This record gives sequence, structure tokens and C-alpha cells, in this order.
Amino acid sequence: MNDGSYDSGPVTFPVLIGGRWQPARNHQTFQAYNPATGQKLPEIYPVSDWEDLEKALAESQRVQLEVASAPPEKIACFLNTYADLLENNQEAITTMAHLETALPLKSRLRSTEFPRMINQLGQAAAAVEERSWCQATIDTRHNLRSKYGPLGGTVVIFSPNNFPLAFNSVAGSDLASAVATGNPVICKAHPGHPGTTRLMAEVLLEALSQSGLPLSTVQLLYHFSNEDGFRLVSHPAVAAVAFTGSRAAGLKLKAAAEGAGKLFYGELSSLNPVFFLPGILKEKGEAVALEFFSSCSLGCGQFCTKPGLIVLVNDEAGRKFLWKLQQIFNQPLSGYLLSPAVLENLKKAVDKLKAAGATLLAGGNQIPNCGFQFQTTLFAITGEQFLNDPETFQQEVFGTLALAVVAEDVEQMLKIAGSLEGNLTASIYSSSSEQDEEIYRRLEPILRFKAGRLLNDKMPTGVAVSPAMHHGGPFPATGHPGFTSVGIPAAFLRFAARHCYDNVGEDRLPQELRAKNPTGRMWRLVDGVWTQSDF
Amino acid sequence: MNDGSYDSGPVTFPVLIGGRWQPARNHQTFQAYNPATGQKLPEIYPVSDWEDLEKALAESQRVQLEVASAPPEKIACFLNTYADLLENNQEAITTMAHLETALPLKSRLRSTEFPRMINQLGQAAAAVEERSWCQATIDTRHNLRSKYGPLGGTVVIFSPNNFPLAFNSVAGSDLASAVATGNPVICKAHPGHPGTTRLMAEVLLEALSQSGLPLSTVQLLYHFSNEDGFRLVSHPAVAAVAFTGSRAAGLKLKAAAEGAGKLFYGELSSLNPVFFLPGILKEKGEAVALEFFSSCSLGCGQFCTKPGLIVLVNDEAGRKFLWKLQQIFNQPLSGYLLSPAVLENLKKAVDKLKAAGATLLAGGNQIPNCGFQFQTTLFAITGEQFLNDPETFQQEVFGTLALAVVAEDVEQMLKIAGSLEGNLTASIYSSSSEQDEEIYRRLEPILRFKAGRLLNDKMPTGVAVSPAMHHGGPFPATGHPGFTSVGIPAAFLRFAARHCYDNVGEDRLPQELRAKNPTGRMWRLVDGVWTQSDF
Repeated sequence: MNDGSYDSGPVTFPVLIGGRWQPARNHQTFQAYNPATGQKLPEIYPVSDWEDLEKALAESQRVQLEVASAPPEKIACFLNTYADLLENNQEAITTMAHLETALPLKSRLRSTEFPRMINQLGQAAAAVEERSWCQATIDTRHNLRSKYGPLGGTVVIFSPNNFPLAFNSVAGSDLASAVATGNPVICKAHPGHPGTTRLMAEVLLEALSQSGLPLSTVQLLYHFSNEDGFRLVSHPAVAAVAFTGSRAAGLKLKAAAEGAGKLFYGELSSLNPVFFLPGILKEKGEAVALEFFSSCSLGCGQFCTKPGLIVLVNDEAGRKFLWKLQQIFNQPLSGYLLSPAVLENLKKAVDKLKAAGATLLAGGNQIPNCGFQFQTTLFAITGEQFLNDPETFQQEVFGTLALAVVAEDVEQMLKIAGSLEGNLTASIYSSSSEQDEEIYRRLEPILRFKAGRLLNDKMPTGVAVSPAMHHGGPFPATGHPGFTSVGIPAAFLRFAARHCYDNVGEDRLPQELRAKNPTGRMWRLVDGVWTQSDF
Repeated sequence: MNDGSYDSGPVTFPVLIGGRWQPARNHQTFQAYNPATGQKLPEIYPVSDWEDLEKALAESQRVQLEVASAPPEKIACFLNTYADLLENNQEAITTMAHLETALPLKSRLRSTEFPRMINQLGQAAAAVEERSWCQATIDTRHNLRSKYGPLGGTVVIFSPNNFPLAFNSVAGSDLASAVATGNPVICKAHPGHPGTTRLMAEVLLEALSQSGLPLSTVQLLYHFSNEDGFRLVSHPAVAAVAFTGSRAAGLKLKAAAEGAGKLFYGELSSLNPVFFLPGILKEKGEAVALEFFSSCSLGCGQFCTKPGLIVLVNDEAGRKFLWKLQQIFNQPLSGYLLSPAVLENLKKAVDKLKAAGATLLAGGNQIPNCGFQFQTTLFAITGEQFLNDPETFQQEVFGTLALAVVAEDVEQMLKIAGSLEGNLTASIYSSSSEQDEEIYRRLEPILRFKAGRLLNDKMPTGVAVSPAMHHGGPFPATGHPGFTSVGIPAAFLRFAARHCYDNVGEDRLPQELRAKNPTGRMWRLVDGVWTQSDF
């Protein structure tokens, strides 16, 4: 998996530009941490300077038309080959991911995240071959035909810290979508898991080579300065940016990209509020408290869909539930935070909540240990406190931390819902009592516009890769509530332009728009009718 | 059509806020021009201050949930009633539009633009009732269902100057789309045709009243300062902005809106290049020269799809074509520019092209007249000149002005194509000769990524309202090449959020996602199959 010229040790790993592993020009370097020990790992990775980025951009531009015109079979072949080769290297990749993130090897990396990544690549390959994703729309009377196609520029993908495999810029959902739609990609690794990224990128290069796609279709840089990042996302060769990460960093990149007319898809912040209606807490408060904790603490609270905000009413069942929750949160739980930065942010968030007057019900302290560990932490505030300062109390933070908002009554609960920012998800737990039904009828229309995915009696952390999934939401959850980053083929559309052909003869049309259905299975909207037939 | 308390004369017309015509608070006013005389029209319209905007925003926010939850039948009823009432007032509206824009009454306003506007409202109503637009996607295995729904905030629409009816913020394509998707709207009139806007808004209020939608669903302000515009588009109550107008103004609004996390749909600039391949000019250069002129001069060159850039090769047929074009452009043509601002911009553009070294082949001067008239104007430059300064030579300008780029050879023509910015359209005229076919095969992949709509042997000015139409394109043509502002229902999607329901029971789902198909005609993607059946 390594070209042989770089052994582990003091040598700085090369970057992947133009289909070749080559030394970064800059001499600045960084190392990742082992979160379980708190120590730096020995491998040394480069911080690229603008010259590296410029070389990558030129390569990307050079191959853009070739990638855009690659037959679907070739792209699908790449995605499938990549998935197969990754499977062959599963052990090495997940071992490295475990080392760099301290996420559980067995219960997470091997059993769920790795298979999810493979599944995504496979689903993307199938969708590319089947072609329905391009939504071919044909008006035979006007001889007017449209379909989605490549953007015609580079897609830049920034890896988040929390999914070293399934959302890694070199192998995750965004990569699959951007390549599936015929766009060249420049990936930025997350500095928390460069080794995992490197191992997968080595496999990726082999898959590109085997499938016959240009070797510069996907390139990898490990790190670069913020300033070079702004320059990168606003470069003429770039068409779109996919960023999953912190709100502060994301907003700066968004401004840079959009200022230059680029598309920016950012997943920036989500508290994933969970509303517990009075009836359900009366009926099974203890069970749902356990359910909440289990979702909140999953992956040590480092999911975009972590439920971080609870809203309940101050009645007897509500107080009992909160008491139970406090007991659960006060039990020790093992698990590591991903990096010193996550630990620092968590400490700051705790201080901020304390300073804002929130009551600490559990945890609140770093666990004196060699790794990055923090107590499971629970805060509570009144509905009035929340309504007086909704901004302060809606700060996304990684780690097993939740804030319970205890509303005076149902009316206040509705007001709290109305003052929420945009979220990826919102959940409502209710009983079948008439009272809960009545509250639901009033609460749901408000919450509907605050989140991309609305759940009933279910925690938000599971995100199925389904065409009906929507992993997105109103700002600041994402920049556009019409797009999803999970769910194939819908996730493709972020990286697609609509291509209309007006009065273009059959021979000059792309296959998808000709009379004959190119796959016999592709769905097309022909004169108002969805059909798999020729026309 | 007027509530009676405001006669024409020195009284300032009121604004439409909260379903009531009420005086603007500010005392600043403006008047529109009659472009045929160059004189101001007597009617006085207000420039609103922030207080008016704030009132409108509060009203919009107040009715948002009610508009979002209005049954499709009610919204369709509004759109149909509005279309009917407009038809009843066709004469008064088109007469006023003619007065304010000097666009031909018979050949344009009455025969094409008014019917187009009515047709759009009718198509939108039909699409709302039929419901396929929401792309219901159902995964029964995961009990996961998604569809498009309202944004959950106000849509602000800015009218362009060039379509007083079909793209008027109170009655055009954007209005139809924004209301169809269940969003309240705040409209800004274009100061060039406030009277036309007012007459239609009076009808609109009646249609809202008859259909039972909240009267604040659509509100109208005539004018406000740029600063208040920035404040408006970044206000918490606002979800999206639709702007069609100048690039400079659009980019400022875009920055303000996107900086606050709002969606911004701008149609900012398009030269609509037309490539004439050598064979077609040899075969029928004269005919296509006439065809070009006819499209370029349509509406006095004030269409977003006006072909303003010609690319041809410097061979005998090319020179002959250019010579013919020069003769055509040198013939006088009547027609008025829409405003003093358009006239000024045109003069500046001519000066800029001259200063940049373009050769003036025809026109170039204002026609000394009482109205806003300018000669039909043709410039030419070499391919080298274009490639040396592509930015200067890609300035959109309204008026019958075209720039011909004479490429040295086919290779240079391809380079020119490669250096184009994003456009709404790009046209290729070619013969069936082997040479043209060969050039087409090389040129098309380059142009494909430079425009939303690619035409063959056809001028771009006709924009059919068809589901297969795409009126959009890469930046700076628009801000997102995946969205269209013409074509129903695709144009709706700009104002829609994706709403996912996870584990939500049948009774609590919107009708579109329940087992029974609510209209029997609605297309839904159920477990991978597009169907009109129940499931």
C-alpha cells in the first residue's frame, strides 16, 4: 500500500498530487494524537503551502473534462474497485483509525463505520450505473431536454474529525457523491487521522489506476493554513466545497467560497433537540432517559446528530425524569474525545454554561487520565433562561454533554421550539394520550421548519443510507435546507449542474436524453410521465 | 382596483403591508419615466424606510405557519383566481406597462408577455394541486419518508426592469414559485414600472381575499435604500431571496444574504455566446446574420438571454458574415431603452469597449431624441484581444449591442470557449459538414460547462415554460447551476426545504407521504419505483 520510498519514522509523508505521492514543498509538519494516551503519534505529516495547492488545482483542471466525460461504467468501476480494495485492507485501516481516534474498534469501526463506508461506495456505484439520479426530463413537443451533470470544476472536500472512515474526504459520502457526478476532487485530510486517510488514499490511487480514471481525479493534501484554505475555495478552478466541521471555521470558508461564486455545502452546527411530552415521561420516563443517554453518549457524544438539548415540562413526571437522567449521567463511562481541541472546546462550553447560569447536574470535569477524557455532563436551565438567551444556550459541543430545558408549561415549550435555530434533526417523544396528541399537533408545525429530519419516539443518532434519508437542515445546520449529505442518489445533487439541451439532435445528445433508455432501468420524466421505457 | 382613497395626482401611493394599502412612513418619493418621451410620469411612489420593512417582516412572520400549512387546493385557488382577475384587467395593466417601459403593446406585452404570465400562474396552480413537485420519496423498510416543503421563512423577491409582467415580483415566475411552495413573500417593485406593479398588486390582494389565504401572504414595497435592502435580506424572518438584476447590485445583496445564512438566487449576468462554425457561415451566413440580429434586438436588446457575444473564425465566410452583420446593424431600428440607467450603462459599455481597443462596426451613439434611444451597435475584436482580457470583454449590457470575436482559427475558438464565464445559454450553429461535426465534438464539452442551456442552430431568446426548461447556469449567470427560475415545477425547488419524517406514524404524516396517493395522479418514488399508485 506504500510506494516503498517512505518508511515510517522521521520522514515526512508525501502528499498525493497528480496521481503521484510526492514530497510537500513546505517543511512545516504536524503529528496526530493517540486520544487514549494523549501522546503524539510518531508519523510526521506535512502542512502544504500554496504551491502544493496550486499544483493540485492545475492537475484537477487538467483532467476535469476527462472526468466529466468518463462513461458511467468507468466511474462505477472505480467506486466498486475502491470498495473491494478497501475491504482487502480493512484490518490495517481500522487499526490505524482506532489508534488515531480511540473510537472502539469492534463495536464501531469494524462493525458499523467500515461497512457503512463500503456500502456507500457500492450504492453510489449502482446509482451511477443505473443513471436515474440525473433526473432526465424530456419535453418532446419543445425538443427540450434536461438532466443533471457534472459541475465543470473541482470539488474540495474537508474531512470532519468524527468519522475517520464513512465521512473521510478520501472515501466517504462526499467523495462518493462528487466523483459519481463526474467531478475531480481535492481532499483535505483531518489532522486528527492523517494515517487512516493516507492508507485509504493509497488504496484509492490503485483503484483509480485499475479503473482507468485519470489519476488526478482525486488528490490529497493533509493540512494547510487557513489563509491558503480561503484561497483554495475561491480559486477559479473550484466549483464547490463540502465542509463538515466547526461553525466558526465553516462560516469563514463559506464567506470566502460564496464571495467568489462557489457553492458551499457546510454542515456547521446542530443540537438535535429532543422534546419529551408530558405523557411519555409519565408512561416510561426511566426507559426514555436511558434511551436518551445511550444516543447522547454514542461515540463519546461526537456525532453531528448527537441529541444535546432536551425540552420537557416542569411537572412531576418531568422532574422524576430529570432526576433519573441525573443519576445516569453521574455514572462513569469510558470513552475518549478525539483530540485536544475537542477537549478544550468541551471545557470552554462547560465554563460558558456555568457562567450563563445553567445548573450542573452531573459531570463537568476532565477526567485526570493520560487520554482525552471528560465526565459525562448534564446541565439544566429553566425555559425562561433559555428564552432570555437562546443564542448562548444553543452552542453545539462535542462530548457527552446535554442541556435540559425545563419549560414552565406547554405554552413555554412551544415558545422554546419557536426560538430554536436550524438543526439536522428534531425528535418528539409522546404517548398516545389525548393531551400529548394535542401538544404534538401544535408543536410539530413549529419544529418542522427547524430541522431537516423529524423523528417520533426515536433518537437521532442512526442515519440510514437510504434515498428517503435527509441529512441536512436549515441554517446553521447546513447552508441549504434542500440538500442532503447522506442518502444516495439525493446527496449527488450538491455536486451537479442542470444541463439543458434545446433543439439538439439525437446524435449529439447524451445517452440519458436519447429516445432509447440507456440502461432499460433508468427512470426518466418524459412529457410528464415517469417511465423506464424508450420514447 | 383602487380602494378609492388615493386618486392619481400629487398624493403618494401607499404600500401594501399586512393586507392593507397604507401610507409609507417615509416622505421620500420617486417617479417612473416614460421611456418614449424621456419625461417623468406624474404618479408619485414612496421610498420606504426601515420601519415599513420591519412591519412587513413582522406580518410575514406572523402568517408564515398559516401559509405553510395552507392546503394545496387553497394555494392553487389563489393562483388561478389571481390569473383570472389579472385577465379581467389585462387592458389597464398592459397599457400601464407600455407607458412605463415603452415595450410594444401589441407585439410584446399583450401578445406574449401577459399570456406568459397568466400561463405561469396556471401551470403553478396545476402543479400545486397535482403535488408531484414535492418529490415524495418513501422507504417503507426504514419507515423513512421525505418530501420538499416550505422553507419556513419569508421569500424576498426583487423585480427586474425588463419584464414588467412575467417576471414582476408581484405576479411573475418567482412569485408563483414562492407561494406555490407555501412561503410568504415580500416583493420589491422595480422603480421603472411601479404603476404596473401597483395595478397587479391590487388584483393580487383581491385574489388573496377570495381564496382565503392570509392577506399578508404577499406584501409590496416600491423602493427602499440599499442599506435597508441589505438589512432586509439578512433579517431572521427571511429564508430566501430572488434577485434578477445587475451584477454589481446583486453581488452586494448576495454577500449580505449569504453572510446571514440565507439562500440567495441571483440572475446576475449572461452574454449568451453564439458560436458560428465555419460550415454554417459558408452555407447560409446571411440568413443566420439576420437571425442573430433579430434575437439580439428583441425587446431592444434587454433580455437576460440576449445573444451579446459572437464567436466565429477568420475565414472568407466569416468575414462575409461579419460584413453582412455590419450592414444589418447599421440600419436604423426603433425601440426604447427602459430607463435613463440602462441608457447610461450602455453608453459606458460602448466607451469601455472602445477604450479596450474594440473596433466599432456600427452604431455607438445615443439617438438624439426625446426618449431613451440608442443606435444598434456592433463591435468586433480579434480572438487574441479577447484572450488577453476576457474580463473586460464579458460585460453584460442591455441594449442592441453585440461583440463579435474573430478567432484566428478553430484552436483559438476553443480557447475562447474555455475562457468564458458562466452563462444562461450558449448556442452553436453548425452545418452537417464533417468539419463542423468535428469542431462541434471538441467545442461542445467545453461549452457544456459554461451555460445552463445549450442550443443548436437556434437563438436563445425564446424561453419555453416547460418542465424540461433550464433557465440558470454557472456563476455569474446565477449563484447555483442546479436551480432554474423558469420551468414549472423545477423552479419551485429554489424555495423548498427537504422535510424528512423518521418513524412517524401514518396519521401524523403529511398526505403526500401516506400510503394513499392523495390525488391519484401524484408521482412518488416508493422503494425505488416511481408510481402514481397507493402503496
